[in-house]
Amino acid sequence: MSSKPFIAPGARIMAWCEALATHTDQPGNLTCAYMTPAHRAVAGQLDAWMREAGFDDVRHDHVGNVIGLYRADRNTDKPALVCTGSHYDTVRDGGKYDGRLGILLPMAIVADLHAHGRRLPYDLEVVAFAEEEGLRFGSTFLGSSAYIGRFDNSVLDRTDAAGISMRAAIEAVGLDPARAGDSATDVGRIRHYFEVHIEQGPVLLDRGLPLGIVTAINGGVRRVLTLTGVASHAGTTPMDMRRDAACAAAEIILYVEQRCASVAGVVGTVGTLQVPNGSVNVVPGACRLSLDLRAPEDGMRDAALADIEARIAEICQRRGVRCDTEEVMRKTACACAPDERALWAKAMAAHGAPVFELPSGAGHDAMMVGQATSMSMLFVRCGNGGISHNPLETITVEDAQLAAQVTETFLRELAAAA
Amino acid sequence: MSSKPFIAPGARIMAWCEALATHTDQPGNLTCAYMTPAHRAVAGQLDAWMREAGFDDVRHDHVGNVIGLYRADRNTDKPALVCTGSHYDTVRDGGKYDGRLGILLPMAIVADLHAHGRRLPYDLEVVAFAEEEGLRFGSTFLGSSAYIGRFDNSVLDRTDAAGISMRAAIEAVGLDPARAGDSATDVGRIRHYFEVHIEQGPVLLDRGLPLGIVTAINGGVRRVLTLTGVASHAGTTPMDMRRDAACAAAEIILYVEQRCASVAGVVGTVGTLQVPNGSVNVVPGACRLSLDLRAPEDGMRDAALADIEARIAEICQRRGVRCDTEEVMRKTACACAPDERALWAKAMAAHGAPVFELPSGAGHDAMMVGQATSMSMLFVRCGNGGISHNPLETITVEDAQLAAQVTETFLRELAAAA
Repeated sequence: MSSKPFIAPGARIMAWCEALATHTDQPGNLTCAYMTPAHRAVAGQLDAWMREAGFDDVRHDHVGNVIGLYRADRNTDKPALVCTGSHYDTVRDGGKYDGRLGILLPMAIVADLHAHGRRLPYDLEVVAFAEEEGLRFGSTFLGSSAYIGRFDNSVLDRTDAAGISMRAAIEAVGLDPARAGDSATDVGRIRHYFEVHIEQGPVLLDRGLPLGIVTAINGGVRRVLTLTGVASHAGTTPMDMRRDAACAAAEIILYVEQRCASVAGVVGTVGTLQVPNGSVNVVPGACRLSLDLRAPEDGMRDAALADIEARIAEICQRRGVRCDTEEVMRKTACACAPDERALWAKAMAAHGAPVFELPSGAGHDAMMVGQATSMSMLFVRCGNGGISHNPLETITVEDAQLAAQVTETFLRELAAAA
Repeated sequence: MSSKPFIAPGARIMAWCEALATHTDQPGNLTCAYMTPAHRAVAGQLDAWMREAGFDDVRHDHVGNVIGLYRADRNTDKPALVCTGSHYDTVRDGGKYDGRLGILLPMAIVADLHAHGRRLPYDLEVVAFAEEEGLRFGSTFLGSSAYIGRFDNSVLDRTDAAGISMRAAIEAVGLDPARAGDSATDVGRIRHYFEVHIEQGPVLLDRGLPLGIVTAINGGVRRVLTLTGVASHAGTTPMDMRRDAACAAAEIILYVEQRCASVAGVVGTVGTLQVPNGSVNVVPGACRLSLDLRAPEDGMRDAALADIEARIAEICQRRGVRCDTEEVMRKTACACAPDERALWAKAMAAHGAPVFELPSGAGHDAMMVGQATSMSMLFVRCGNGGISHNPLETITVEDAQLAAQVTETFLRELAAAA
């Protein structure tokens, strides 16, 4: 037993999040981009805390992942491997909990288990993924892709705004980019991967719920639409003789909203919108807009997209407007494992937390690791209206404590189910 | 009688328009900005053609207007004064007929009258207004305001893109800016002002009509709206928890279209539209758009505006979006004189032209001169889909000829009615 005073996991997590946030590329806000001094300082700090918490082994791979291993108890024959983690890089001027909560929460659990001399009947790996946001090199899921041996070596040639290649950035900190593709773990041994993450949205807050079980990480499609009508004089062109590209865009925007609102879990957004070189006294001859469509199942997304495409065709036909479409992204949805969702529900119920399920609209490392193994996710309520990727991002110590308790119970349930 | 070969007015007008278009500030297109060498060359050419056509007097005022006087016949005691004209400056890369048709057409009529030894029972002044478009100094109706003694001396201090003041530009060509405000005519003597102008829209073309009588020059209001919602994550914010500024804008755009389409003559346009710093994966927290609303009667415009304001308030209330409004222009509608509209109709009928009336969506010098006297306008069909302020702007020689014949008949009708 440790002689240190007992610190509840929730309080420990909050203190660690605060301390990590002091390492930043830009004083005055929290920015932790891949392989910067702040980023390396965070990796070093995590390593130190993991050792302090009682992990049996802490290792680093060549993309900057920090991996703590808490061994199964000695009575277990050929132990399975359960993994959990999240990313420690941030967006520019980001929040303290995005990603880091999913590293520090299981670390706090291990600290608690170790303090009480307990072990699990499987090896537990807690992974601090070096990079998920893509801030510096535009390459997302870097850490988790390397962890499961799916690293894309071509990203090593990418350069940052200063012209420094990722390869050079990795070498500069003493790691070997040639070994970035080496899998950091024995994927075949993984029994399950789970990730605890701040919701980054307002759903739990709005419903007064501390925790939510993720059903799936939404798949998505992104398109850029260019509408071409006819520019004409705003004073001399009667309403019924116009081919107004902005009016066509307006109809599309409202249909996207209406169609997506009609199915729970589907979200559609026109985030960019512009009449290029527009003038107050000219009927818009062109309009550019983006479409971002996400759903927890690819079929739901595709059905919405088909309806939206059909409506766009009808609108453009009726208005004499041409629509050119460019698809700029398409990602398949990633379902969370039903068995482990049930275990999360059991664990939540055990702590009196109402069981609630929701899809994840944002992408997470679990999406990448989920390509190699079964995965599940737990969302923790996001304060301040659900804002994330922002210094206002916050969680409460009570929610952190509950999430840690539920997760520890989940780990026991997982052991029983194995 | 002149010994020169007879040239029909229509052909003469077309030839003159072509010849004037060779004077340009920018070789390769037609740009004739205030007080440039091209602009002065056009003034000189008009002066020469007026004298050649048989005007009794050609004078210049100090803003660059060129005024040809064709005297009443000698039997007329205390002759009245009838005025007509339009502007000879252009927009950048403009058309050959915008403005110039309204100068050259009555000049061709005077040439015709003079060739046949005919006069009218009133003095006829044909005015080539130096500036209406505001291309160089952003000061519209410069020529017509000076002509009726309503010149705004404060515009003399305006500077062009090169920092040259209007005062200096006027002095540089040997005119006296201090006398710019001197009325170029005896306003009290004016019996009527009329203006022939290319329609600059598609209405006559669409209806297969060569000519149209203008009912009124539309009044208008222009506003810039800034909508403020809440930017949020496009993936994690459910549809029913958004405060999307672009969706609010879309509703406004479609209501403006619907409301204006419901009343003949009213036009409403959202010409500029933008989500500032929009991102494909962010729900728009802001949207800026313009509103341009025009109607032949101020009451019609104000009724439409009130409905639009009420709908904007309802949309913003429902969506939790704030709307800040800035009014950037408000112009009163200017009705054409009913008596002279009837004379135009009589003249058109006399030439077998179907009588058709329409409002003018664009502003014209007649709007300014109409502040001092009764005014009327005749529109000539605009080819190429109704395009104007563009090198594709065109009219046919047949329409020019018919317009000249109808105008000559109108002048006789005006004499009879006087």
